[in-house]
Amino acid sequence: MALIAAVYKTPKNAQAFNAYYFAKHVPIAKTLPGLRSYQVSDGAVGLPADPGGVHLVALLEFGSAEAIQRALASPQGQATVADLANFADGGADVMVFDTKEV
Amino acid sequence: MALIAAVYKTPKNAQAFNAYYFAKHVPIAKTLPGLRSYQVSDGAVGLPADPGGVHLVALLEFGSAEAIQRALASPQGQATVADLANFADGGADVMVFDTKEV
Repeated sequence: MALIAAVYKTPKNAQAFNAYYFAKHVPIAKTLPGLRSYQVSDGAVGLPADPGGVHLVALLEFGSAEAIQRALASPQGQATVADLANFADGGADVMVFDTKEV
Repeated sequence: MALIAAVYKTPKNAQAFNAYYFAKHVPIAKTLPGLRSYQVSDGAVGLPADPGGVHLVALLEFGSAEAIQRALASPQGQATVADLANFADGGADVMVFDTKEV
């Protein structure tokens, strides 16, 4: 399994972020080829070391890191990445990695 | 479902980090009451925007954010958090959140 993890920092307007994210960005991101599941944080993201800095975390699951690279290189992937500029004005850290159970 | 997500920044010595993390920290963290699954990144964590800054990502799954609060408040949770000082010399962002499928 492999994941795209997107950590969205606090935006200028949380209500506008959420409205755009769920109505517009999620449907675009859901077109990514190979996407198996898509989870987001529900409510506050608590940060013991730095409370309040993160607004939303998204975890998009694929079969492998190669599948993620293919997805991001596709037209749907390019549209998903380009759409970040429309709402993620607080910035976002995006990480891609294979996972294993320990 | 709820997650603890730990994002470990690049440590001074990646080999020493990995040796300690898997031999010592994982067994301590696995004692957390209510822990359902424990996944870590396998290999490089690719960051399109900032390559190389993150060494390892850990995702610990629990039934709810309340279960995480109870786990972190337990003696096992205190031991797990205290153990971070033994290996996470590059720093770590730790986030706690409920999740939902979208």
